[in-house]
Amino acid sequence: MDGYTLKNQKPTHKDFLDTSDFDQAEIMDIIRLSRTVREYIKGGGYLNALFHKTLAMLFEQKSTRTRVSFEVAMAQLGGHALNLAPGAIQLGAHETIEDTARVFGRMCDMAMARVDRHESVEALARYADIPVINGMSDRVHPTQGVGDMITVFDHWPEGKEAKDIKFVFVGDATQVCNTLCEITTKLGFNFVHYGPANHKIGDEWLEKGRANAEKYGGSCDWSEDPECLRGADFIYTDVWYGLYDKETPKEVYMKDFYPKYQVNEEMMAATENPNCKFMHCLPANRNEEVTDAVLDGANSAAWDEAENRLTAQRGLVLYFGGVAQATLDYIKQQKEAK
Amino acid sequence: MDGYTLKNQKPTHKDFLDTSDFDQAEIMDIIRLSRTVREYIKGGGYLNALFHKTLAMLFEQKSTRTRVSFEVAMAQLGGHALNLAPGAIQLGAHETIEDTARVFGRMCDMAMARVDRHESVEALARYADIPVINGMSDRVHPTQGVGDMITVFDHWPEGKEAKDIKFVFVGDATQVCNTLCEITTKLGFNFVHYGPANHKIGDEWLEKGRANAEKYGGSCDWSEDPECLRGADFIYTDVWYGLYDKETPKEVYMKDFYPKYQVNEEMMAATENPNCKFMHCLPANRNEEVTDAVLDGANSAAWDEAENRLTAQRGLVLYFGGVAQATLDYIKQQKEAK
Amino acid sequence: MDGYTLKNQKPTHKDFLDTSDFDQAEIMDIIRLSRTVREYIKGGGYLNALFHKTLAMLFEQKSTRTRVSFEVAMAQLGGHALNLAPGAIQLGAHETIEDTARVFGRMCDMAMARVDRHESVEALARYADIPVINGMSDRVHPTQGVGDMITVFDHWPEGKEAKDIKFVFVGDATQVCNTLCEITTKLGFNFVHYGPANHKIGDEWLEKGRANAEKYGGSCDWSEDPECLRGADFIYTDVWYGLYDKETPKEVYMKDFYPKYQVNEEMMAATENPNCKFMHCLPANRNEEVTDAVLDGANSAAWDEAENRLTAQRGLVLYFGGVAQATLDYIKQQKEAK
Repeated sequence: MDGYTLKNQKPTHKDFLDTSDFDQAEIMDIIRLSRTVREYIKGGGYLNALFHKTLAMLFEQKSTRTRVSFEVAMAQLGGHALNLAPGAIQLGAHETIEDTARVFGRMCDMAMARVDRHESVEALARYADIPVINGMSDRVHPTQGVGDMITVFDHWPEGKEAKDIKFVFVGDATQVCNTLCEITTKLGFNFVHYGPANHKIGDEWLEKGRANAEKYGGSCDWSEDPECLRGADFIYTDVWYGLYDKETPKEVYMKDFYPKYQVNEEMMAATENPNCKFMHCLPANRNEEVTDAVLDGANSAAWDEAENRLTAQRGLVLYFGGVAQATLDYIKQQKEAK
Repeated sequence: MDGYTLKNQKPTHKDFLDTSDFDQAEIMDIIRLSRTVREYIKGGGYLNALFHKTLAMLFEQKSTRTRVSFEVAMAQLGGHALNLAPGAIQLGAHETIEDTARVFGRMCDMAMARVDRHESVEALARYADIPVINGMSDRVHPTQGVGDMITVFDHWPEGKEAKDIKFVFVGDATQVCNTLCEITTKLGFNFVHYGPANHKIGDEWLEKGRANAEKYGGSCDWSEDPECLRGADFIYTDVWYGLYDKETPKEVYMKDFYPKYQVNEEMMAATENPNCKFMHCLPANRNEEVTDAVLDGANSAAWDEAENRLTAQRGLVLYFGGVAQATLDYIKQQKEAK
Repeated sequence: MDGYTLKNQKPTHKDFLDTSDFDQAEIMDIIRLSRTVREYIKGGGYLNALFHKTLAMLFEQKSTRTRVSFEVAMAQLGGHALNLAPGAIQLGAHETIEDTARVFGRMCDMAMARVDRHESVEALARYADIPVINGMSDRVHPTQGVGDMITVFDHWPEGKEAKDIKFVFVGDATQVCNTLCEITTKLGFNFVHYGPANHKIGDEWLEKGRANAEKYGGSCDWSEDPECLRGADFIYTDVWYGLYDKETPKEVYMKDFYPKYQVNEEMMAATENPNCKFMHCLPANRNEEVTDAVLDGANSAAWDEAENRLTAQRGLVLYFGGVAQATLDYIKQQKEAK
């Protein structure tokens, strides 16, 4: 693309449930779209591509970053996001998820859901006649994945090609780990999960990653050997305590992960790459999975990454809202008019 | 009217508390306005009739449909709805309802309230210098009633006049039943509440309905005899468990209603009208008051009905916001310009 | 100024944490800006000065007036306010306040916080690269202070100069009392806290007030002697029970304050000023700190004061959002075009 032309004029799937459903070209479309829109808005431009459109945000679990980034994204694009907090809506309580889906499908233009079980967001997507975006399930966190890949492009190691990029996820194989395994290999990077055997990434994800690697040129692995850190361009970690509603007791998880899997200055040094960036989906449990020195250090990309949640959500609502190409055309036209 | 001229250029009452307060012509104005605006927006038109105007939504009870429909309606008309959830505001707790009303009246342009007791929304209306819309009380559910009548017009039985329409409400005489008794007879239909004697619609409503019938040409009745179903054009039902905050135990309500008052295929057949539509205000307790086969069947108008909550709320905020005629003039002008 | 030119084209401080940080000229700028914008909007004018801009509202404590006034202010200026209610965000729970601040600073354009402890809003301001407004802490309530001074200007005693104005705060030395001590003396008024010794305003505030008085020409005092009421132009009071989350038992506070410090008709008469206005930040505990007769009386400015929360918030978000002068220029231009 010339930067302003999408490969797919329309999404190949109505919903964004899992990055696995999309090929490299479509993921790259969303990433480029997101970055172009960011540049335009940061440069003082305004967009009304979702003028008077509404996004229903359904939360089965609390969320700060996901909620704020979607709500701001909709506001910046002329639309409105409705916040249905855990207390405000109980999927499957007073009515079936299917019926809730039908009702939202009749009133809103799009929906985003953070769910306890992946099946719930799938049911919403099946029964709502509107695009449904997965705002995190127990299985994957695809909007995080898109934001994180935008951050990788923002911090691209000078002179490297995709096949040279090494991306190491350290610690607990959370749903963020699953999505990163999938999306990094789809983009042709080399992915490693560095974590203890009893928290190892699921084989289905390693297989997905290896299938991607075969197609797109990278690699995919799991390891307990700190040797795997060498040459990393990105070290990524997530909290050790699991999901808010079923947290693991601290004495249990510390035994599993600490001190070996804490991202500290020693671990960063073990990459032997002074330009290796640190990433974290946040919130961080400081001085457990990451030390202050690393999170606040010069190589931390964590705050750029937080902002890129917003960058990604803008791209996603434009893309699945069906107005991506029109938006790029408009931005191109505005630039040429200058 | 030519479709673009209201009988009343301004509402006869500041507030929308109960359909009983309005005559047929005014209710018809709101219904036609709502349908015209729906057609315009569904056709790709945009309205800014409530540009920068705010609607305070005060909830003493949880709500999905009422909240979402009002919030979307305001967004689609250029305004904003503030969601004051049950936890966020407690009417009469740290200040009197009257004082709360005064404060909202000074900051917002309109208010909508879902209240435990009808007296509360009356007090809000009395003390707030802004239009107040009743989003459901223990007595009536007038916005549901307007949406439901829009659905009746959408599914109008071919070749029939108002005086030929039979509307049967089955089961528990909820506040939805009260409002439907009032509004269907106001529109000149024949209304029957088919339910057990210990859940019979209140005499005051039957009297209101009969007074309407005398004036507008329909009829109003209550019956335990399934014979009353014959010839029905609409079968309507609601849940049996009462309000969320004082739910009846299942063993109690099942004894009262099941199986006689369950809307199933047999009951639909008993109407002897193959075109009889099924309606439900939702949420539905599937296979209690209605079977899957009916709710998901070809004659179910329940999902159109859900969407018409939004259709009605747009009409209501425009009408009580005092911009209904201006909006119709604008739509007419836009159509003529084409 | 000619009414349309600010002394400071930009705020001297990024954040609005405490009125103590600003000199008289800057406070007067905000007050005049707020009143000009109110006049423009009440006259039917529309502003889009914060078009697509977002304000994050973080609440550690429930709030009605603060939340509604900011949310309406943003909507009226073309922006959007995100409501992060006490349940939705827990400062310092799953991440440090500093990290929360950094994330909001990356996604939103401004933040407003109501906090348990003043240190929290200071930390937010330090770590967020966006303007932070204090929506009330245990120390001060600066947005209330600005709104209240707007009310004083609206009800300015005919023929008087600032140095002739007497402002008496009655009862418990809440954070509202602290801010009013500071801001009234900054504007050159005579301030008295009339309350029992065991609820006396802190010495640091009396000292601040006296330093202001020296500079700007008024006075500052505390007294238990009802004699201090004589000549008051404004009698102000607040509830006696303390903050919601650590309320004092009724039997304790009644012994401290009742009946001596109840604002009733007798107390209003003791001012010997028939034009003395009554003010209250609300919510009011009727017939405890103030009687119905006074709150609902002809001299009550409490409802104007409630509306001026909105007046002040509009001014504050414009001012700290950096678009105050541009807004005044626009309003001037619109007026001249007529």
